[in-house]
Amino acid sequence: MSDLTEDDFLGGRLRLRQPSKGFRSGMDAMLLAAAVPARPGESALELGCGAGAAILALGARVPGLTLAGLELQPAYAALACANAALNGFALEVIEGDVAQPPPGLRARAVDHVLMNPPYYDRAASTRAEDPGRDLAHGGPAPLSAWLALAGRRLRPGGILTLIQPTARLPEALAGLPATLGSAEILPLAPRPGHEPRLILLRARKGGRAPFRLLPSLPLHDGPPGPDGKDFAPWAVSVLRGGTSLPWP
Amino acid sequence: MSDLTEDDFLGGRLRLRQPSKGFRSGMDAMLLAAAVPARPGESALELGCGAGAAILALGARVPGLTLAGLELQPAYAALACANAALNGFALEVIEGDVAQPPPGLRARAVDHVLMNPPYYDRAASTRAEDPGRDLAHGGPAPLSAWLALAGRRLRPGGILTLIQPTARLPEALAGLPATLGSAEILPLAPRPGHEPRLILLRARKGGRAPFRLLPSLPLHDGPPGPDGKDFAPWAVSVLRGGTSLPWP
Repeated sequence: MSDLTEDDFLGGRLRLRQPSKGFRSGMDAMLLAAAVPARPGESALELGCGAGAAILALGARVPGLTLAGLELQPAYAALACANAALNGFALEVIEGDVAQPPPGLRARAVDHVLMNPPYYDRAASTRAEDPGRDLAHGGPAPLSAWLALAGRRLRPGGILTLIQPTARLPEALAGLPATLGSAEILPLAPRPGHEPRLILLRARKGGRAPFRLLPSLPLHDGPPGPDGKDFAPWAVSVLRGGTSLPWP
Repeated sequence: MSDLTEDDFLGGRLRLRQPSKGFRSGMDAMLLAAAVPARPGESALELGCGAGAAILALGARVPGLTLAGLELQPAYAALACANAALNGFALEVIEGDVAQPPPGLRARAVDHVLMNPPYYDRAASTRAEDPGRDLAHGGPAPLSAWLALAGRRLRPGGILTLIQPTARLPEALAGLPATLGSAEILPLAPRPGHEPRLILLRARKGGRAPFRLLPSLPLHDGPPGPDGKDFAPWAVSVLRGGTSLPWP
């Protein structure tokens, strides 16, 4: 990871070093962080924190959080530590795999778990019949393993917040452990009336309310502008103003 | 089932006898029938056909279909037969349980399966920890049993169409057998921007396309009228004109 860029997020409230090639965080991480309903003094754990974009964006919005991240790849874990220091946040980074959580993670009970698990574009590749095969072939742990770990690490009443491409919605709902209930899906559409490409999911440990599919939130209003940056007012507020996302 | 009413559906194209008390079909059955992408000459099977509202509405829209229905309760099965005769359709009604399909159903491979499985309002009652308990306590077969039977009875390339309350979406997606893919969800919202209360699901036997969440289709346009009957043009066309539903 020799080449790094340093980029501004949230209107300059957050500055992140990221590899110029490889996995680069962007809007998804900022939307995920903005959707976590954390209050000052609570604790938050990001599974697969990469260079720390989402968990640090959460720290930039809500003061006084206890922040932790689990990351499989040592180079990204080191970058997350460096990015926390760069922004003056205390972030505990734990190296390890969601499928085999390290001892340092076991005793924890947090108020919030957030995640944006990596995925393959399964439509563009041959689908493995056995979900375990992807892992054996060097792919990421199955989504169900991420969700199970979230269920174990949340305190009763604690909340999971997840962002994923819409194509992964069935896998996300099927993989939710029985301990996580009151699930709500907030679809994010590019424009009003368009097909949502991303979904945010929230579920509560011990929740028993019926599942809800909320009305889609369009990222852009009106016709596309020449620069393609005609964000809806809520999105401008989230992405440039660093506010929370308006969960209906 | 002593007291029956006789009601018009689809602008008078369909006339149905139904019990004045007990389960009465309505808009859900008409929307389900309108969403089945059947072409003349194909075969369609409704699981849990009740008094025949949905399968007969499909027959009223698409000519030359081979129609069959499975129904657990003898009184409703008899009513479905009577309603088919009343409207001049050939409908084969098979008595039996989706959880223990009768022999007459086994050899079949149909082009379309449609269903609107019954459900309890789980939010309003104590939730059974074991899904099997509901059944043992006299409740309906679990949704997964309905979906598994649909998967077995569809021919390769055949299509399942289902309507359910949105609260049952996780159960529907988790219960889809691996043989049914290319799933699409069409949420039906009461009005633009409102939370969808119903979802239509389509899946194809052998389909491998990514899951899609389609933009919601609002049943009503504009502000509510004094009679509450201000349906959107597509809904008027479906419910009074007997046309197909505009699947995006």
